Amino acid sequence: MFTPADHDFMARALELAAQGLTTTTPNPRVGAVVVREGRVVGEGWHRRAGEPHAELLALAQAGGQARGATVYLTLEPCSHFGRTPPCVDALIDARVGRVVAAMEDPNPRVNGRGLERLRAAGIDVRCGLLEQEARELNIGFVSRMSRELPWVRLKVAASLDGGTALRNGRSQWITGEAARTDGHAWRSRACAILTGIGTVRDDDPELTVRLVPTTRQPLRVLVDSRLEVDLDAKLLHAGGPVLVVCAIDNPDKEQELRDRGCEIIKLANAAGKVDLPALMRELARREINELHVEAGARLNASLVREGCVDELLVYLAPSLLGDAAGMFALPPLDDLAGRIPLVFRSADRVGDDLRIVARFAGRD
Amino acid sequence: MFTPADHDFMARALELAAQGLTTTTPNPRVGAVVVREGRVVGEGWHRRAGEPHAELLALAQAGGQARGATVYLTLEPCSHFGRTPPCVDALIDARVGRVVAAMEDPNPRVNGRGLERLRAAGIDVRCGLLEQEARELNIGFVSRMSRELPWVRLKVAASLDGGTALRNGRSQWITGEAARTDGHAWRSRACAILTGIGTVRDDDPELTVRLVPTTRQPLRVLVDSRLEVDLDAKLLHAGGPVLVVCAIDNPDKEQELRDRGCEIIKLANAAGKVDLPALMRELARREINELHVEAGARLNASLVREGCVDELLVYLAPSLLGDAAGMFALPPLDDLAGRIPLVFRSADRVGDDLRIVARFAGRD
Repeated sequence: MFTPADHDFMARALELAAQGLTTTTPNPRVGAVVVREGRVVGEGWHRRAGEPHAELLALAQAGGQARGATVYLTLEPCSHFGRTPPCVDALIDARVGRVVAAMEDPNPRVNGRGLERLRAAGIDVRCGLLEQEARELNIGFVSRMSRELPWVRLKVAASLDGGTALRNGRSQWITGEAARTDGHAWRSRACAILTGIGTVRDDDPELTVRLVPTTRQPLRVLVDSRLEVDLDAKLLHAGGPVLVVCAIDNPDKEQELRDRGCEIIKLANAAGKVDLPALMRELARREINELHVEAGARLNASLVREGCVDELLVYLAPSLLGDAAGMFALPPLDDLAGRIPLVFRSADRVGDDLRIVARFAGRD
Repeated sequence: MFTPADHDFMARALELAAQGLTTTTPNPRVGAVVVREGRVVGEGWHRRAGEPHAELLALAQAGGQARGATVYLTLEPCSHFGRTPPCVDALIDARVGRVVAAMEDPNPRVNGRGLERLRAAGIDVRCGLLEQEARELNIGFVSRMSRELPWVRLKVAASLDGGTALRNGRSQWITGEAARTDGHAWRSRACAILTGIGTVRDDDPELTVRLVPTTRQPLRVLVDSRLEVDLDAKLLHAGGPVLVVCAIDNPDKEQELRDRGCEIIKLANAAGKVDLPALMRELARREINELHVEAGARLNASLVREGCVDELLVYLAPSLLGDAAGMFALPPLDDLAGRIPLVFRSADRVGDDLRIVARFAGRD
């Protein structure tokens, strides 16, 4: 069904799409390649919401050569009016001969309809080439469209024996500079970064993207059930939007936070804490595709226990800490059967450290 | 100094040497390749102590073609009478033209003298090709010869968050079958396997090599300060020698253990526990090259604290255990500067698990 050449052109389209990794939010990352007689005559990738879609850029570059050509798309073209007119119309108007898509658009407003309209216009349409790679590239967008939840990636840095902080609270610089820079690269692709009041109190982080170049700062989300955040916390003053999520009413503190540019929402559960699953739904509603979590052992554990986390991004430092605070403040188990199963995705050296990516079973 | 062809032939010699990984104990693993006019005319590897050395096998295969040939050796040839006559004499008698050695023999009875005697006989001698690989292959032999200590490799299996056993003591089967088989392969290359009374009490392991083929069982060493081992413990009945190391006198128990085929030695430190550094020296004296440790968090911690461990072999399972027993019962630190530094060597998938090899800083 697909030739080796098809494979290569789609791989190129994915490479183009990946250039939008940190900028397309809340749109998906999409790449397009127009090929005529085995030669690339047009390439494009989506840069940011409101700017042209990948297909339009590639068709524009191909000009008259698009007629009868094959167009490789990492995502089904849109068939609806969004911020731009439907790309399906542009492909039909350009009289392309064949469209190869990596995957259908999980957006319920598209979901196969784009490909159907192309077929109805007499274009030869194929779907499913390098689909897994395409889905991975837009894992957050796919999650939001299909589950109405962001893809939640939790980052933690620990010693090889699993220690994240000394018992006296000291925790910084367990991993090296390369791992910290790599962590910022993962921050930069997320739409939002979430932390908890404990981390703000202990470490006072900015949670901005600084160690890698970026054109935007992700939304910072602070889980602060009782609105205890210090008004001088760096998080509130590092620039870029901050969403504070609480579980109580405190109009004075809320006003003080609003004066510092924060938005405050109340999402309480029966225990008087922030309702984390409801928060995830709210973040999806706000078009958060990938959510990056950097929190302490207690919030980490709550997020895991409440089923909110999809993926772990673990940096292991080459050291032993012995008796230390762990990654997740989960209660002791009575039986090994109660352990939380994961699936390893990768393990790579980053500087002197190791970076391990694992997914929760069923989310892989 | 070395040509690409030299490199390839030495790589082949190392490949041959590695075939003796589990059998040459207490001798080093050695391979030899005889090359004449760019063609291999003889190959050999040392199988086990008392049997011919690699050089002799390779020379025998080469026959008259050895004259003027180049001989690639993963280790300097012996110049002394051991269990077999010196290989240096055989090389001289065969009138080889050139000898390329990966490394000098760290055995103080050789230590360059073998190469010197070859040079004195007019043979062109080079040393140091793929030396690092050759040293790694015989890391235990090198350690014993140069430090009078075995190379100590400590194996531990844990969840991704560093848990090794539930708080209620349950610990088995954290990692999968492939990792357990891999663990037996590492056991099989060791001269001895060491554990502690706590592990014998909790898990009652045999600590034999079963999941991979082997021609010998490593010596099992039990650290049992107060001679508390149950006479029915599987360790005592699994076949093969057992050395029990204690710190008290208990003639009756000692006799009962001797009746079951154990050897008992007493090595007490001032605290009335087994003197672990003294035990390491004793094991080296008994020609133990590589010592494989599978123990619990307490003995692991004592070995680490007393500087006895060179390398960690860590299997991480794709799961979270939360609050659980850790890898090393080391006391809490006051300052991160007190952490124990390691160097990562490798991180690989083994079945569904990860295998991480790390060395203690200064031992890498």
